[in-house]
Amino acid sequence: MTSRQATVPAPAPAPGPEPTAVDPGTGRDAILRAARRAFTQRPYAEVTIRGIAADAGVSPSLVVKHFGRKEELFNTVADFGPAAAELFDAPLDMLGRHMVVTLVSRRRELQSDPLLRVVFSLGNRDERSLLRDRFHEQVTDVLAARLTGPESTLRAELIAGHLLGLGATLSLHREGAGADATPEHIADLYAPALQTLITG
Amino acid sequence: MTSRQATVPAPAPAPGPEPTAVDPGTGRDAILRAARRAFTQRPYAEVTIRGIAADAGVSPSLVVKHFGRKEELFNTVADFGPAAAELFDAPLDMLGRHMVVTLVSRRRELQSDPLLRVVFSLGNRDERSLLRDRFHEQVTDVLAARLTGPESTLRAELIAGHLLGLGATLSLHREGAGADATPEHIADLYAPALQTLITG
Repeated sequence: MTSRQATVPAPAPAPGPEPTAVDPGTGRDAILRAARRAFTQRPYAEVTIRGIAADAGVSPSLVVKHFGRKEELFNTVADFGPAAAELFDAPLDMLGRHMVVTLVSRRRELQSDPLLRVVFSLGNRDERSLLRDRFHEQVTDVLAARLTGPESTLRAELIAGHLLGLGATLSLHREGAGADATPEHIADLYAPALQTLITG
Repeated sequence: MTSRQATVPAPAPAPGPEPTAVDPGTGRDAILRAARRAFTQRPYAEVTIRGIAADAGVSPSLVVKHFGRKEELFNTVADFGPAAAELFDAPLDMLGRHMVVTLVSRRRELQSDPLLRVVFSLGNRDERSLLRDRFHEQVTDVLAARLTGPESTLRAELIAGHLLGLGATLSLHREGAGADATPEHIADLYAPALQTLITG
């Protein structure tokens, strides 16, 4: 999702009879980045494996080999489930701080934001809104179900807003003050807002 | 920026010797929406007046008549100055609530978010980052200059994050709980976080 080149170590290729390609990890990362751009910026019907492959600088067959066909690749890109599971993995009374520290740490490790791609998708006019639907189900609804007290849906939407806004401003000010601050210090300033919405 | 058709009343055309076109207001709105999509989703060099006109369903000459050439049209789209002036038009001790109420109210009146387009621009790979530069100058830097106390730049970045996140989540949950809440009620829940970053 970022325009920088990813510097995360490539995952080890799965063992198997196939000879491993040169730098298969980089190929995977490039395909995922290209797929995210494609699915967030264009209507689903207009996205092609061929276009993603061209953007990633690989062959269409390598895309299919790594990720399967278009629908499977979309499901990989649109899956917020693992990110949500990690972000929400704390007791309610510590959840605000946990979410902020986790979001900032993961962004730095992966050089990519775990949630922000859903916002990029708002700029396109895809009436099917598949990526947004997935976000609702896997992030907002899951969070709302965990909250107790009144207006849990509204509070979950606003908490999602705080998380998306944090990712947005860190991406927007890549060389700003937030880039130099530790995740813990950002949480000192930013997490109380989330915690108030979580536990009042 | 939204995929809905704008329902705001068209501004009255300026008086002048030219006969007014049929529904010139709608033409202006359609051009502005198309220009926002173009400049946020594609590198500046790839954007053309012809493409914007086609997307808006008008002639290229009408685009130039309303907004001038590409550079002038970009300056209109990229200008966060009026939005920032309005969002920041309150004493510091009331600024958090003022920003939230103003943002939500303006979004509803204009059917468009005053700031969010800068986030859509993160999805493209334009190295010139003109839209982001403008946001830094007109929003984050202006806000940081108004703040007193330590870490004013980091606090301004995080306040910008809260505002962008609020717009993002309201756009993302168009038919959610936030859509039914009044701006004042959203401010009750969301503004304390901003006020804490403003005045501690």
